[in-house]
Amino acid sequence: MGELRKDYVLDRWVIIASERAKRPHEFRQEEAKEERGLCYFCPGNEKETPPEIYRIEKAGRWQVRAFPNKFPAVKQEGDPAIRTDNLFYTYAGNYGRHVVLAETPDHHQQLWDLGIEEIVLVLRAYLEMTYLMQEDTAIKYTAIFKNHKKEAGTSLVHSHSQIIGYNKVPEEIGREITAAKNYNFCPYCDIISRERNSLRRCFENDNFIAFCPYASRFPFEVWIFPKQHILHLEDIKDLQGLASMLKTVLTKLKEINAPFNYVVHYSPTKEDNLHVHIEIMPRLTTWAGFEMNGTVINPQPPEEAARFYRGENG
Amino acid sequence: MGELRKDYVLDRWVIIASERAKRPHEFRQEEAKEERGLCYFCPGNEKETPPEIYRIEKAGRWQVRAFPNKFPAVKQEGDPAIRTDNLFYTYAGNYGRHVVLAETPDHHQQLWDLGIEEIVLVLRAYLEMTYLMQEDTAIKYTAIFKNHKKEAGTSLVHSHSQIIGYNKVPEEIGREITAAKNYNFCPYCDIISRERNSLRRCFENDNFIAFCPYASRFPFEVWIFPKQHILHLEDIKDLQGLASMLKTVLTKLKEINAPFNYVVHYSPTKEDNLHVHIEIMPRLTTWAGFEMNGTVINPQPPEEAARFYRGENG
Repeated sequence: MGELRKDYVLDRWVIIASERAKRPHEFRQEEAKEERGLCYFCPGNEKETPPEIYRIEKAGRWQVRAFPNKFPAVKQEGDPAIRTDNLFYTYAGNYGRHVVLAETPDHHQQLWDLGIEEIVLVLRAYLEMTYLMQEDTAIKYTAIFKNHKKEAGTSLVHSHSQIIGYNKVPEEIGREITAAKNYNFCPYCDIISRERNSLRRCFENDNFIAFCPYASRFPFEVWIFPKQHILHLEDIKDLQGLASMLKTVLTKLKEINAPFNYVVHYSPTKEDNLHVHIEIMPRLTTWAGFEMNGTVINPQPPEEAARFYRGENG
Repeated sequence: MGELRKDYVLDRWVIIASERAKRPHEFRQEEAKEERGLCYFCPGNEKETPPEIYRIEKAGRWQVRAFPNKFPAVKQEGDPAIRTDNLFYTYAGNYGRHVVLAETPDHHQQLWDLGIEEIVLVLRAYLEMTYLMQEDTAIKYTAIFKNHKKEAGTSLVHSHSQIIGYNKVPEEIGREITAAKNYNFCPYCDIISRERNSLRRCFENDNFIAFCPYASRFPFEVWIFPKQHILHLEDIKDLQGLASMLKTVLTKLKEINAPFNYVVHYSPTKEDNLHVHIEIMPRLTTWAGFEMNGTVINPQPPEEAARFYRGENG
């Protein structure tokens, strides 16, 4: 069953090309060689990172630790205001803060290996970083994301996330906000109620649901939403429920050793109506020339991915 | 010099993060191991491909040869009409034709190694493939693109392009068409006249110009435009000039052994006003979680890339 599908709300399309499909475990990646040398994120090497800006301690040792990225994409320098020269070139300084968050002191544990309460600390650190970014009114959005493995953009093994606050609302987030504004109440609440009863549903607990999106761009793509209409990270009361859902989903991705990114989407201001959620994007395919035009080719139907998450195939 | 920049016409942004910049030749890739075994694109193995649909011969042997992709992303099956179920799920069959074009019979030559007249044959084959696709009125756009090396989405060494005609205008092409419609005459004519006198200009011949775009998303990204306001591939009279410009640009990319994609952008109908051009996108960086939000981080200012193309640095 191949199909051309459009995202729920965005002008973003995908060709589900199941002629190219593999069985889930055929996507499994070989383990890459461990990096060598000093790990700057390990306890004892704290002096190797730029000065620490946040930590949570447990029994006298740090459990989660944040510090500026040594090679930042943005800096609190230059003019954050966006301007257009002669009605033509639009630009600003690449203004903002770029923070790295070590999620655990243990070099050999990944996020999914941590206990629920430890994952809660990571989520709590995300929230604290958004508060930190909000102190600078020139920062318009705080991107919270995680890269895992080389194909997903990081060669560092030590489990970490990144937080980039900068002087613009990212385009995809902006488009989702616009789509929500033009919708009656909330498109994502509708999506949740539909996908809950679809073949794409993966997991559910009291307050969260995980499903593979209808127009998945990546094999095993999966989204986690609070079932209530919650817009901001800080309004999530049940961080345990979210941590537990994240652990459940990532533990499945571990089975196929998948490189992945995840990104938190949320409303940057009190005026926006974007339902907070996490999009998890395994990076098992390479976007080629065709994808650069917009439409993405995905060799795996999301219904198949959902069966994998539910443990119904192998 | 870091900067946040917006594309000329699209809501597409890039952070030029030159703190992360390398000198051009530090981007150089190591040569991957040659593939082993039978090459289906080589003369003598024609029976291994699906039945041929086009060839250009020279002295009794084929010079350029087209055949259906063995693992097509689209097929002339199912319903090409796009429909929406209950105002919610939007879909169609993944309808169309997916063609592979062997650009040369010689396994060991790449596109830039060919003579100008041989590259003209490749461009002429692109045009013939768009005519072929137009015979099927359900095909709304014919994507013409080339992938080179694994990081750009192909593991096949034999120099080839792909042509996918399908039942939708790709999103990026659609957005460019909309931008052109909302512009006085043609945005790209304005862009050409500005970039011609900018630090981003790379090469120029009688009818074509190559420059690195202001908001380059990729290190060494470069665009080739006809200087005249030409909208369709078939209206390009000076194919020699285009072939020569393509060879000049790709010969520079060969120096750093870069994986790349290129994509032809053009007006799919006589009503559209999209200035035909080729976008060449070297794939030397990996898009990570941050990029999935929209804004892309590019470690190389396009002004630096243009200096490389002009031979002013190393």
